[in-house]
Amino acid sequence: MSDDVSAPASLKPPEGYELLDWNRGFGRQIGPLYRKAWDDGRRTMAFSVQEHHANGMMNAHGGMLMTLADMAWGHVISVEKSSYWVTVRLTCDFLSGARMGDWVEAGSEVLSEEDGVYTVRGRVWVGDRTLMTGMGMFKTVAPREPAPGEKAWASRQTQGAAA
Amino acid sequence: MSDDVSAPASLKPPEGYELLDWNRGFGRQIGPLYRKAWDDGRRTMAFSVQEHHANGMMNAHGGMLMTLADMAWGHVISVEKSSYWVTVRLTCDFLSGARMGDWVEAGSEVLSEEDGVYTVRGRVWVGDRTLMTGMGMFKTVAPREPAPGEKAWASRQTQGAAA
Repeated sequence: MSDDVSAPASLKPPEGYELLDWNRGFGRQIGPLYRKAWDDGRRTMAFSVQEHHANGMMNAHGGMLMTLADMAWGHVISVEKSSYWVTVRLTCDFLSGARMGDWVEAGSEVLSEEDGVYTVRGRVWVGDRTLMTGMGMFKTVAPREPAPGEKAWASRQTQGAAA
Repeated sequence: MSDDVSAPASLKPPEGYELLDWNRGFGRQIGPLYRKAWDDGRRTMAFSVQEHHANGMMNAHGGMLMTLADMAWGHVISVEKSSYWVTVRLTCDFLSGARMGDWVEAGSEVLSEEDGVYTVRGRVWVGDRTLMTGMGMFKTVAPREPAPGEKAWASRQTQGAAA
């Protein structure tokens, strides 16, 4: 395996996806990750399964899929509301696995918002195959600069950071 | 940050903890992890929060805490039953955060077993402070060599691997 988690030179992500050029922390360690703003308003994040994402069976590790889910499902709060947010609860149902080189995408839709707590339904998939479904609860914690950009993507944190 | 995720030379884990010397895949990438078999029969896994585990606030990233939970909460199946297992569902409630250098531990207790599906209640903590509580459902998929060892720890996989 390689320690260099920057984008493989050979990887050309699907159309519309751009590299999240995180250069520190867990986001860098488990990267590279990509994001896309779809014409219909959806936002997704994705990664290509590499050896450093693998479990002993050379599938994407469950921890990696949950990490993507956390980031991608919660991102809707950054989009709908210019606010930093923390994860309150995440429920993940594992349905299928991803193999080396698979392009794994994740996104969510908001079911409700009450008192700054968003409840979303999320999904992680490869092509037509669903890998994971679940629910997320995310809490807004502080306003952020409304201009969307890398900082907004990189600044998410978990509940404890605000506790 | 360092790409070398082997144990920091300065880190002497608490008594009874041994390094999980994983040398590939996601387990290595997000390591180093440690494990301990307690005198009362409990088993825990743990890590020391380093920069490559951090979110933008320099707390342990939620994805890292869930990854530890997945590994540590499911390990009870390896102990109670000499079997490989997959994660079916994981529910994580985030209560508090972990800072750089914190020693984060995780463990679980079995609530039920039916038709090879174990339901466990799990916790992740730093000292007296609970970071996360949750539930896990794990399914046994194939017998493994009964001798406990590194292979048993390293061979866990997620649901999709067996699908």
